[in-house]
Amino acid sequence: MKHILLTQAEDQPGLIAKVTHVCHEHGLNIIRNDEFVDKESGQFFMRTELSGDMSRATLLFALSKIRNNIKHKIVEEKKKQIVVFCTKESHCLGKILMDSLFGDLQVEVKAVISNHDDLRSLVSRFGIPYHHVSSDRIERTDHEKRLLMILNRYEPDFIVLAKYMRVLTPTFISHYTNRIINIHHSFLPAFAGSKPYHQAYERGVKMIGATAHIVNSELDGGPIIEQGVEHIDHRLSAADMVKTGREIEARVLTKSIDKFLKEKVFVYQNKTVVFD
Amino acid sequence: MKHILLTQAEDQPGLIAKVTHVCHEHGLNIIRNDEFVDKESGQFFMRTELSGDMSRATLLFALSKIRNNIKHKIVEEKKKQIVVFCTKESHCLGKILMDSLFGDLQVEVKAVISNHDDLRSLVSRFGIPYHHVSSDRIERTDHEKRLLMILNRYEPDFIVLAKYMRVLTPTFISHYTNRIINIHHSFLPAFAGSKPYHQAYERGVKMIGATAHIVNSELDGGPIIEQGVEHIDHRLSAADMVKTGREIEARVLTKSIDKFLKEKVFVYQNKTVVFD
Amino acid sequence: MKHILLTQAEDQPGLIAKVTHVCHEHGLNIIRNDEFVDKESGQFFMRTELSGDMSRATLLFALSKIRNNIKHKIVEEKKKQIVVFCTKESHCLGKILMDSLFGDLQVEVKAVISNHDDLRSLVSRFGIPYHHVSSDRIERTDHEKRLLMILNRYEPDFIVLAKYMRVLTPTFISHYTNRIINIHHSFLPAFAGSKPYHQAYERGVKMIGATAHIVNSELDGGPIIEQGVEHIDHRLSAADMVKTGREIEARVLTKSIDKFLKEKVFVYQNKTVVFD
Amino acid sequence: MKHILLTQAEDQPGLIAKVTHVCHEHGLNIIRNDEFVDKESGQFFMRTELSGDMSRATLLFALSKIRNNIKHKIVEEKKKQIVVFCTKESHCLGKILMDSLFGDLQVEVKAVISNHDDLRSLVSRFGIPYHHVSSDRIERTDHEKRLLMILNRYEPDFIVLAKYMRVLTPTFISHYTNRIINIHHSFLPAFAGSKPYHQAYERGVKMIGATAHIVNSELDGGPIIEQGVEHIDHRLSAADMVKTGREIEARVLTKSIDKFLKEKVFVYQNKTVVFD
Repeated sequence: MKHILLTQAEDQPGLIAKVTHVCHEHGLNIIRNDEFVDKESGQFFMRTELSGDMSRATLLFALSKIRNNIKHKIVEEKKKQIVVFCTKESHCLGKILMDSLFGDLQVEVKAVISNHDDLRSLVSRFGIPYHHVSSDRIERTDHEKRLLMILNRYEPDFIVLAKYMRVLTPTFISHYTNRIINIHHSFLPAFAGSKPYHQAYERGVKMIGATAHIVNSELDGGPIIEQGVEHIDHRLSAADMVKTGREIEARVLTKSIDKFLKEKVFVYQNKTVVFD
Repeated sequence: MKHILLTQAEDQPGLIAKVTHVCHEHGLNIIRNDEFVDKESGQFFMRTELSGDMSRATLLFALSKIRNNIKHKIVEEKKKQIVVFCTKESHCLGKILMDSLFGDLQVEVKAVISNHDDLRSLVSRFGIPYHHVSSDRIERTDHEKRLLMILNRYEPDFIVLAKYMRVLTPTFISHYTNRIINIHHSFLPAFAGSKPYHQAYERGVKMIGATAHIVNSELDGGPIIEQGVEHIDHRLSAADMVKTGREIEARVLTKSIDKFLKEKVFVYQNKTVVFD
Repeated sequence: MKHILLTQAEDQPGLIAKVTHVCHEHGLNIIRNDEFVDKESGQFFMRTELSGDMSRATLLFALSKIRNNIKHKIVEEKKKQIVVFCTKESHCLGKILMDSLFGDLQVEVKAVISNHDDLRSLVSRFGIPYHHVSSDRIERTDHEKRLLMILNRYEPDFIVLAKYMRVLTPTFISHYTNRIINIHHSFLPAFAGSKPYHQAYERGVKMIGATAHIVNSELDGGPIIEQGVEHIDHRLSAADMVKTGREIEARVLTKSIDKFLKEKVFVYQNKTVVFD
Repeated sequence: MKHILLTQAEDQPGLIAKVTHVCHEHGLNIIRNDEFVDKESGQFFMRTELSGDMSRATLLFALSKIRNNIKHKIVEEKKKQIVVFCTKESHCLGKILMDSLFGDLQVEVKAVISNHDDLRSLVSRFGIPYHHVSSDRIERTDHEKRLLMILNRYEPDFIVLAKYMRVLTPTFISHYTNRIINIHHSFLPAFAGSKPYHQAYERGVKMIGATAHIVNSELDGGPIIEQGVEHIDHRLSAADMVKTGREIEARVLTKSIDKFLKEKVFVYQNKTVVFD
C-alpha cells in the first residue's frame, strides 16, 4: 500500500538526508519526493510517497527524534469523502459528480447541501443524499448550526463549496479549518465579492478567470490553490462571461480538489505550497 | 494600395449594407470586414479593408450622406512612427527595437526618451536618437514640458510607454488623447500601482500577468487592449516573478502595438473594441 | 425569432453589400455578421444573424437573384438533435449529457449507441435510450446497417463520436456527409491511428492534445474543427497521459459541437472555416 | 558559490538518502533538490543545488562509494558560452542576442556562424564575430570541416541552431553529442522536414507550434526539450503562419536554452527529463 509522508519544519541543513534516511532504514522505498524551502519564512515542506509495509507509529516515533519542532503526518493514499455545498448553479457540482462517478476524481460525495432546492433532481440521478437547508427567515448562526448537524452525520474529510453563494462565518469555518475549498469566479484579487463577471464587464478586461482557494475568515481572501483564465474579447456581454466562466470554474475547482485529496497542498501563513 | 475605413456610429438597421454599398459603388473591393455592435451602449463599430484606387475626399463625402452622426475615417495601411518612453528596464524596449528592425512590427522608432541614461547604449546600437530627460530636481510640469518639446520634433503617430516608471499628468496626456499605450506588469485591475509583483507575491497568486492599455487620467485605469498571463507556483520569489514577467510584458505590449497600428483598436467609454 | 443566413460563393466584388442590402430591404436587422474570403481558393463565406419576421422562401428567392452559383441557406437558431456513439470511455459522453441537461450545450441527445454495454448505467441516469449494438461476430457492413436502422428512428441533425473506437466505412459516412463529428486523442496530424498516447509517450513529447474533426473517408484525416493541448513533462506515463487527456478531449469535443450547432462551421475542400 | 550535482543511476532503494547524506556530511546545504524515477527504464535522475565550500574531488570520491554504476557530475552555476548557427531569419537569433545582453539568458554568445551573409549587420550591432561560411559549390563534409575549425576556436559549451536551415551530418553531430539544440517550427512529430507551416496550412490545423530538441542523427527526431503552440484560425495563410510562428519559435528556443544551461535537462534514450 502507498503512504504519503508530509513533513513541515523550520529549515535546517540535512533535513532531506535525515528524513529519507529514516524511511530507508524502515525498509520503505521512496516512489516520489517533493520538497520546497520558502526562503522568506525559512519553512521547509516535503511530501514523500512511500511504498512498503510500515508501522505508522514506529515510523513516526523514529521521525520525531530527528529534531524538535518538526511536524510529520502519514496518510494512506485513498479515496477521500466530501460533502458539497451549492446554491443554484449546476456546472461545478455536475462535474464533481461525473468525475467522481468514473474515478477521475478520487472522492466519494457523501452528500450535497444547498440553500435552494434547484439541484435536487441532478443529485438524485447519482443516488446521493440532497439536503435543502433554506436560509430564508432564519438567523445566520441557526442556519449554520443546521449545516453542522448534517455534516456531523457524514464526517467528511473536507468540504467543497461548488458555487455556494453564501458567506460562512468564522465560527463555522473553525470547525473545518483549512478543510473548506471554494471556487471564486474571478482571478483574485481582482473582482472579489459579488458579481465578479459584471465587475469584469464594466472594467473591460480581456481575460476572465476563476480561483480555487481555502476558505478562511477573510472574504475571498484565503490561500489560493489554483487559478485559471481564458482570453475574451469585446463581444462578450456580462451574461456571456458568466457562461464562458462556467467551464473555467469547474475545471479549476476539480483540479484543486484533486491536488488537495492527494495531499499535495500545504497551507501556511496565507499561502499554499502545491506540489505537481 | 490598401486603405482602412473606420466607421463608428449609433447602431441603426442597414448600416453594413449602406456603407459596403458606397464602397462597392466607388469601385473598391472589400478585402476584409469586421463589425461589432455593443448592445448596451448601442454603438456600431466597423473596420473595412479596401483595395482599389480611391479619392479619399469623394468617398468620405459619399459616406457622410448615409446618415447624421456617423464618424468615418480612412487611413492608409503603412508603417507608423512612434516615440518610446522608458526608464531602466530593457526588455520591452529591446523587443520593440528588434521587432521593428526586421519588420515584425510595422513601426519606425523615431526616438527613445528616458528619465535615466541606462539604456542609451542599447538604443545607440540601433542608430536611434536617445534623449535623457532627468526628472531629478525639477517640477513635474517642467519635466513634461521638456518631453513635449522633444515630441514636437518627431510628431509621432503614437507614444509607447515601455516600462516608463513615472505617472503622466492629465495635461500631458491631453496632447496625445488615446494615443499613449502603456504596459502594466499585472493582470489589471489586480495589483494596480507600484510594485505589482511584490503585491502578487504577498497575496500568493498562482498566475502573474501583464496588461497593455491606453493611458488616461486614471492611474492604471485606462481602456485595456490586451492581457496575458503565465501560471506560476510557490517556488517563485518576488524577484523571480519580476524576471518571469518580463517575457509576458514584452509580448503583450508588442502585440497591442501591432493591433493599434493596424487600426484594429476602437476606444469608447472606458473600453476597447479590438478586432482580430 | 433569430435566423442564421449562411452564404457560400465564389468571391466577387460587392457580395457583402448585395447580401446585406437584400436583408435590409426585407426588414431584417443584422445582429451579427461574419465573413471570410479564402484567397487561395477564391471562396467567400458569410454567416449573418438576422432578427425580424421573414418569409424564408421570399428571402431566398431575392437572394438567389444576386448572382449565379451562390449557395444560401437559412436556419432557425434552435436546439439541435444528436445521437452519440461511444464505446467504453465515459468522459466525453458524460460531459455532453451534463452540458445538455443544463443548457450549456443546446443539444437534445436523442439516443446513445455503443458497441459495448458498459455505459448503459450512466446513460440511464439521464433517461435517454441506450442501444448496445455489439460488433462481435458480425460483418462490418451488417453492423453498420443496424446502426443506420436505429439512426433512422431518431433522424438526428448530426452524429457525435464520443470516443467511439471503431472505424466507420465510407458507405456509412455517406449517409451523414459532413454531419459526423469525431474526437481524436492527439493533436493531429501527429499520432493518427490507434493508441496515440502510447505513441506520444514513446516520442517523448512535451504536450498532449485532442482534435475534433468532421469524419470523412480518410482515417483521422477529416476537416479539423478545433484542437486543444496541455503541457506535460517527463513524469507522465502513457497511462497518466490517457488520464490527463480526458479533460482536453471532452472540452475540445463539446466546444466543437457548440460551434457546429450554432452553424459557425463551414466545410470546404478538406478544411473548415470556424467563426468565433 | 553555488554548485549543481547531477546524479544518474539505475534506481535502487535509498539513493536519495545516501546522496543527500554525503552532501550533508561534507558540510553542504541543499538549496533545492529535484528527482525523478522513470519506472519503465528503471532510471533514477537527481539534480541537487548545493551551497557551501566544497572540494569537488573529495565530494565526487565520497559519492563514488555509494554504489557502482552511478554517474555523478558537479558543475558550477555560471554563464555558459555558446555559438549560434543561423541562416537568414532574424527572430530567434535576435532574441538570443537581446536576452543575453541584459542577462535574461545567462549565456555569452561567442560567435555567430551562418551559411548566408544576411544577418551580419544585426550581429555586428552586438559586437560579436560573424562567420559567413557559404555552403554553395562545396561538399557537405568540407563545409562542416570549416564549421568545426571555427568552433574549435571558441570551444563553446553548446551550440544553438537558431533557424539554421541545413541538416548536419552524424559525423558533425558526434563532435557535440547532446550539445546541439535546434528549434523546429512545428509541434513535432507533426510536420517534420521542410516547410512545416505550408504542411500545416494544407492540413487545415487549428494550432501551430514549435519544438526545441537535442539534435541527433535522425532528422527532427531528437529528444524534445520544450514545445509551444498558439491557436490559429482559418484566416491565416501559410505566410501568416510563418509570421505568427516566429514569436513561438523564439520563445520556445530561448526557454529551452535556459533549461539547458541551468543543467536542468537530462537526456536518456530518446527522451529528456526537464526539471522545473
